[in-house]
Amino acid sequence: MKLYNEHNPAPNPRRVRIYLAEKGISFPFVHVPMREKAHKSTEFLTKNSLGQVPVLELDDGRMLSESIAICRYLEELHPQPPLFGADPWQRAQVEMWSRRIEFGLMSRLGAVWINTHKYTAHLGTQFKDFGEASRLRAVKALQWLNDELQGREYLANERYSMADIVALTTVDFGTFIGVEMPAELTHLHAWHARVSSRPSAAA
Amino acid sequence: MKLYNEHNPAPNPRRVRIYLAEKGISFPFVHVPMREKAHKSTEFLTKNSLGQVPVLELDDGRMLSESIAICRYLEELHPQPPLFGADPWQRAQVEMWSRRIEFGLMSRLGAVWINTHKYTAHLGTQFKDFGEASRLRAVKALQWLNDELQGREYLANERYSMADIVALTTVDFGTFIGVEMPAELTHLHAWHARVSSRPSAAA
Repeated sequence: MKLYNEHNPAPNPRRVRIYLAEKGISFPFVHVPMREKAHKSTEFLTKNSLGQVPVLELDDGRMLSESIAICRYLEELHPQPPLFGADPWQRAQVEMWSRRIEFGLMSRLGAVWINTHKYTAHLGTQFKDFGEASRLRAVKALQWLNDELQGREYLANERYSMADIVALTTVDFGTFIGVEMPAELTHLHAWHARVSSRPSAAA
Repeated sequence: MKLYNEHNPAPNPRRVRIYLAEKGISFPFVHVPMREKAHKSTEFLTKNSLGQVPVLELDDGRMLSESIAICRYLEELHPQPPLFGADPWQRAQVEMWSRRIEFGLMSRLGAVWINTHKYTAHLGTQFKDFGEASRLRAVKALQWLNDELQGREYLANERYSMADIVALTTVDFGTFIGVEMPAELTHLHAWHARVSSRPSAAA
């Protein structure tokens, strides 16, 4: 297997890298230089018609995209330690928390990134008002997350999981684009320090 | 178990209803009247702090939200017929396709709904320009989906799955809000007719 990847602050490829580090799995990475629009090339579109990384290529040439789909597939091949939960209820919790982060926080950060950031200004029309409203909603989502983390070590099942990987890569992406965790969100900061102290966070 | 649900055109509760119909599972539904903001009441927020339906309540009082998390949980309790795939690769394909629909199409339709529709005008500021741009992107996503469906009966694994449920509820939501399938997208129309002919589609 090999992974088409861009080693940048984008949250989706980093999810897979952290997941691999936690599992102790390694296989070749193929660098896809997104600044040169390599992910939109005719050749890359045959791997993923949406022109996105990461993409996992199996040894027989089959292609799999979407970061969570890739990690779920690897989880079935390498079940230990379980990062998607160890029983049906735990697995449901990991899924619920991952989705809450993606739809409640990441979607807003993505809107800020696309509509307000100087790095994306060349990609098309920016809807600045919508982007700024999304910034406020993203901060509200961070406040919600802080409340949920009160008294909790990790997001789901009292153990580190894919949900924490999704949240860590999302929160760090927020910091990268200028939506930082407010200082008073102490539960969020404590959780962030906890998951960031794991060696996998460097991935 | 019981399901807190709103029987309206919203795609997320309908996903669960179709899933249950396909599985032949039934348990009580608790109607949550969203027009009366019952999903934002203090009492409901104890069930889901995000104030969203559906929510599954277990017999011991545990709560699970997020439609896909609910269906995944039920899939583990009722594995036949498999709607999330029958082996690791199939499961990865169902996940990939579900996510492609959610992030590529549903996110755009949601932006149209929230930012342009008369029914949502009272909920807060509408960013009309962004909403109209999202409409164009939603139509492009429908065109992409049409291309992908060429030569295919179903989205993933050549059999009906959760990915089709996600796509059906999303496409039908688009029609409800005025983003209809262009007539020339014949593969999409054929797929839509196929999945709509199943009794579960009435759910």
